[in-house]
Amino acid sequence: MFGFVFIAALAALAFAGINFYGVKRMNQGTDRMIEISGAIREGADAFIRHEYGLIAKIAVLIALALGIVVSWYTGVAFILGAVMSGSAGWIGMKIATISNVRVSNKARETGSIGETLKVAFRGGSVMGLSVGGFSLFGLALIYLVFGRFFGQLGQEQLLIKANWLGITFIPFTMTVSGYALGCSVIAMFDRVGGGIFTKAADMGADLVGKTEAHIPEDDPRNPATIADNVGDNVGDVAGLGADLLESYVGALISSVVLASYMFYTNLTAASGSISYDLVSHLLVYPLIFAGIGTISCMAGIAFLLVKKISDHPHHELNLSTWISALLTLIGTGIFTWFYFSGQDIAALGFRLGALSPWFAAVAGIVTGILIGQLAEHSTSFDFLPTKQISEASREGTALNITQGLAVGMKSVFFPVFVLAGAAICANAIAGLYGVAMAAIGMLSFVISTVSVDTYGPIADNAGGISEMSKLDPSVRIITDQLDAVGNTTAAIGKGFAIGSAGLAALSLFASFLYAQAMPTDTDGYTLNLNFINTMTLAGGLVGAALPFLFSGILIEAVAKAARKMVQEVRRQFREIPGILTGEAKPDYTTCITISSAGALAEMKLPALISVLTPLAGGFILGADFVGGMLIGTTLSAIMLALFTANSGGAWDNAKKYIEQGHHGGKGSDAHSASVVGDTVGDPLKDTVGPSLDILIKIMAVISLITVSVFQDYNLVTWISSLVK
Amino acid sequence: MFGFVFIAALAALAFAGINFYGVKRMNQGTDRMIEISGAIREGADAFIRHEYGLIAKIAVLIALALGIVVSWYTGVAFILGAVMSGSAGWIGMKIATISNVRVSNKARETGSIGETLKVAFRGGSVMGLSVGGFSLFGLALIYLVFGRFFGQLGQEQLLIKANWLGITFIPFTMTVSGYALGCSVIAMFDRVGGGIFTKAADMGADLVGKTEAHIPEDDPRNPATIADNVGDNVGDVAGLGADLLESYVGALISSVVLASYMFYTNLTAASGSISYDLVSHLLVYPLIFAGIGTISCMAGIAFLLVKKISDHPHHELNLSTWISALLTLIGTGIFTWFYFSGQDIAALGFRLGALSPWFAAVAGIVTGILIGQLAEHSTSFDFLPTKQISEASREGTALNITQGLAVGMKSVFFPVFVLAGAAICANAIAGLYGVAMAAIGMLSFVISTVSVDTYGPIADNAGGISEMSKLDPSVRIITDQLDAVGNTTAAIGKGFAIGSAGLAALSLFASFLYAQAMPTDTDGYTLNLNFINTMTLAGGLVGAALPFLFSGILIEAVAKAARKMVQEVRRQFREIPGILTGEAKPDYTTCITISSAGALAEMKLPALISVLTPLAGGFILGADFVGGMLIGTTLSAIMLALFTANSGGAWDNAKKYIEQGHHGGKGSDAHSASVVGDTVGDPLKDTVGPSLDILIKIMAVISLITVSVFQDYNLVTWISSLVK
Repeated sequence: MFGFVFIAALAALAFAGINFYGVKRMNQGTDRMIEISGAIREGADAFIRHEYGLIAKIAVLIALALGIVVSWYTGVAFILGAVMSGSAGWIGMKIATISNVRVSNKARETGSIGETLKVAFRGGSVMGLSVGGFSLFGLALIYLVFGRFFGQLGQEQLLIKANWLGITFIPFTMTVSGYALGCSVIAMFDRVGGGIFTKAADMGADLVGKTEAHIPEDDPRNPATIADNVGDNVGDVAGLGADLLESYVGALISSVVLASYMFYTNLTAASGSISYDLVSHLLVYPLIFAGIGTISCMAGIAFLLVKKISDHPHHELNLSTWISALLTLIGTGIFTWFYFSGQDIAALGFRLGALSPWFAAVAGIVTGILIGQLAEHSTSFDFLPTKQISEASREGTALNITQGLAVGMKSVFFPVFVLAGAAICANAIAGLYGVAMAAIGMLSFVISTVSVDTYGPIADNAGGISEMSKLDPSVRIITDQLDAVGNTTAAIGKGFAIGSAGLAALSLFASFLYAQAMPTDTDGYTLNLNFINTMTLAGGLVGAALPFLFSGILIEAVAKAARKMVQEVRRQFREIPGILTGEAKPDYTTCITISSAGALAEMKLPALISVLTPLAGGFILGADFVGGMLIGTTLSAIMLALFTANSGGAWDNAKKYIEQGHHGGKGSDAHSASVVGDTVGDPLKDTVGPSLDILIKIMAVISLITVSVFQDYNLVTWISSLVK
Repeated sequence: MFGFVFIAALAALAFAGINFYGVKRMNQGTDRMIEISGAIREGADAFIRHEYGLIAKIAVLIALALGIVVSWYTGVAFILGAVMSGSAGWIGMKIATISNVRVSNKARETGSIGETLKVAFRGGSVMGLSVGGFSLFGLALIYLVFGRFFGQLGQEQLLIKANWLGITFIPFTMTVSGYALGCSVIAMFDRVGGGIFTKAADMGADLVGKTEAHIPEDDPRNPATIADNVGDNVGDVAGLGADLLESYVGALISSVVLASYMFYTNLTAASGSISYDLVSHLLVYPLIFAGIGTISCMAGIAFLLVKKISDHPHHELNLSTWISALLTLIGTGIFTWFYFSGQDIAALGFRLGALSPWFAAVAGIVTGILIGQLAEHSTSFDFLPTKQISEASREGTALNITQGLAVGMKSVFFPVFVLAGAAICANAIAGLYGVAMAAIGMLSFVISTVSVDTYGPIADNAGGISEMSKLDPSVRIITDQLDAVGNTTAAIGKGFAIGSAGLAALSLFASFLYAQAMPTDTDGYTLNLNFINTMTLAGGLVGAALPFLFSGILIEAVAKAARKMVQEVRRQFREIPGILTGEAKPDYTTCITISSAGALAEMKLPALISVLTPLAGGFILGADFVGGMLIGTTLSAIMLALFTANSGGAWDNAKKYIEQGHHGGKGSDAHSASVVGDTVGDPLKDTVGPSLDILIKIMAVISLITVSVFQDYNLVTWISSLVK
């Protein structure tokens, strides 16, 4: 059974390799195209090198700390997670900077939407397959080396052990948590760093270019335009890939950790009735589920690459995703049936028989789709909310902003309502394990969604290169069409990301409570996080405030770098005569350096906040405080993530709607107002929103790993002991 | 002891009456001033009449429902609360529309800042004294009629009783909760209705007047200018008064309810050790505390009205507030010492002897001041955050907005941190009763803060009247100076409002848990709100989303009315030639009607959401869900309230900083950008923020009143019973 997971992961990586070299072999086009895409590639390479250099130092420090305080295998697993996540991000950036110019060239050579789509999608699939392949490969390695070879999955090892400091935990839970933490930390740095880079460049380019100099997007006369295109690769591709890899791993390990604790509880409780055999099943089940998803997605991708493409790229992409999802559902359904039949499912509290965990996963998928649809309702100009923003733009900038804020805030309620319903349903079907499975369900065809999500920025970049290389406008029309399709699909992807982050955080939180209850109470547990406890309540308050602080710092970081960019672009227009007439070449490199330096300088604080606050809370005020904090942060971050993603998306599309000719079209006052709204929304939807998804998981995993330490060793306990 | 509270309340009302007629006797000035202030007064009168007509219908319905499902005295107390709150709001509006023109005239006649300050402050004090007087008078009446006459404060009546439906509760807790709910419902309608009115008019006037027609604020050529001034009176005065009255009553009754439940627990628990005598002390203590605060504030106000005023109005106002606060502290300290000495304080878990509740109140006061200072740091242009917004305006509107959002989000953390610290401290000193006392502490000199808060809009209005009556510019300079002082003091007032709302909500929430635990468990309680329970967790999610929905609806309501206003003002400029040259008179009435109609139409939905959601949650999903919901709403609403108040305040002052001549001063591009920011911030800080404070308390009180009903009668329980 288990070898299958390895095969699936390696097959995905092999497929990624084939597509990588398949794209790389293609023609790059004219000299000008080669020059421009080379500049983009160099900029992205340089940034990622610097970024990874910084991350590597911090990762080694964290690994050492984990190794000393928790256990050596947690530290090793952490490094493995970091390497897997880093590799996926790096390959994504590579393929994106390789594909962009080839997409543009294919459009130039063939003039066919279908053929161009294939190149862009082949590039995107490399990222999707890498995300799925690396994450699963690393996890399978963890199972093989630590689970089998070091015996951490053995019956005896699933009980609590003490480390050299006398701190107790269940070894395998620490190993997989370390792995997840590695992925989370990289994702946080990638997302935050990439997010600041891309939005600083984007805002800087737009603010002076569109608003002051009135030159179109991606115009080579704009000094920030290459930086903008570099940003797409390091932010929207590398950042997004690391982000979804982290979600995927977070969802997988939350179910594994939960199953371990459930088994432990059950063994030590008087009424224990879960056998070791059944627990082994629960521990391996999520991995095989993911493996089936991987194979299904490969089929869906292969289908699109092989078939003849119609002129409706939207349908083709959707078809590919639906095939992946459907195959995943069928495959996992059959597997689940055989896997759990004959097991004593009732002892687990599963209410719908052997298929219970599968039903929970399906509930997750349905929820993800619903949240995605709701996001589309809030952000697409086919629906009222975004149209209202466009209309409000007629009364000026202030009302565009105000209406956008209103749409964003209102858009929070229904997705959360659906998410709450999903949690209740999944829990009713298969308990907390069901909640974790719902998150896994949402992400089981992550390879397909990442492929589509990556395809978008590749097409976007291809458009930029066409523009800057002064290719025939027909090329730009093709890439724009492809780009537009990417945007809709991305909205649904965001729904899955936020929904799964919420559910995974809830299961991690439950694991945290198990870990907290564990050493003090061996005769059955009372899992308790009681908000009548003032310490918990205070934790809730502080936790709920954290995402606001975090978001504020991120927005400010983007604004700071963007302002420097604006000043630089203005300076170049002023000091280098002839830029605007096309006679002089702007200095692209300085703009890239500004984005890069800004991102590297500003990414540290928010990333460190996410890692250090649960530790500070735990070691000063103890586990009750941290429990409250996790709830507060989760609740508040989900709301802010939805608010920022949806308001940003709605502003963006409200502008596009006006550009289609409504309310006066391009050049009207309404259009100017909508450009401001779009710019305000940029850092919200592309930097803040996605980072918040990571924040809640990183905090939950860190707390889970360290709760056994700080629940005994904290300042309050120490002072109390002194007073006595 | 108890007669003292009555005397204090009546004395405050008498003092209010004296000041009311003192102001009314003064001269109104020129014919033009009389005409304009008459128009403002008529507009405000007409709106309040319509608004109260609508509220009255809803209030009667709620009272009937309470009377039938809970008890007749809850319904009666609800009406009493509504009448008290309504009276305070009405008198505030009255005095504000009477004072404004007289302030302006005093400045015209004397040219003295000191003399003018006295008139404005005398007007403001009428509102402050009414808020303190009416709330305390009503509460004293409740104690006299229900507590004494109907014996609800008797030892036997402090145990649970069943009503005709068989639903059980402690009678006096229901009476005071009904009273508080009456105040809350009125406050919600006043705040929301007034907030929509005033901001629609304000935004409408600014958007066309300042941004398009480039005429100054309060220019009589602007058709929306009278509506704007009407708005100040119905929103900033009547709304604010009802709001703070509600906070005050909420804080007072939360301690009373808590004390009742603590007594009940203790009596029924095996280890019971709290005597009835001690509980009587706890039940009456908050009222006397408030009475002492009332007398102290009267002294502070009288001091300012009697003394010779220097040319530093800021110092004078601060001095008056400090005198009130200091007298309150000394008075309550001495009283507390004698009141609790000899009582078995240790049985209550009070850690600092007889003075424990007083220390908790002091902790509250310190917290309120700290939160106010932090608010000032975030919003005053003497400090970096607001200066950064001004500076960012140089790079255009988008960066002004982005920076303002960042400042607002970052500003959330430290106040919440302080609040969490206060909760921990107050709880350590005097348990949950201490947390309630901390809220009372913050509000004990509410009369002074409301007086100063009301003085601000009065001075603002006086400035408007001077401008519109074309008085000498020296008059405007005086009123502007007075207005500026009001703004700083208002920031600290907001800190108290948010802080006390948070703490009061926490104590109400604790009472809710008592009420929930009560009927099922007579042998000692386990107060429990466990977030491992999926129903509670789902409640937390939905609860946290509610304030976002609520805020979104409010912002949209303002935007909707403002857009109509913009269209109307544009229409008048277009269709009535000669307005801008001053040759034709604009049609002020239509603008007032637009604001009024908009407010009346849009206020219903948000107000009803606040009342109906806990009921819907409770009767469908039960008490565990509602408990989670209360936590979620409280956490999320506190964050949003701080975010909206501080970002709005910072945008406002960033504009003022530029208007002082920085970054190009008035007329520069930076100034235009900052005007947009100010306009965006308007509905956030003056409509959304304050309404959120009310939301959390209204939901907590409704849940507290109805939990005994819906914890047995809800859909989930009913379905479960069918399945069995």
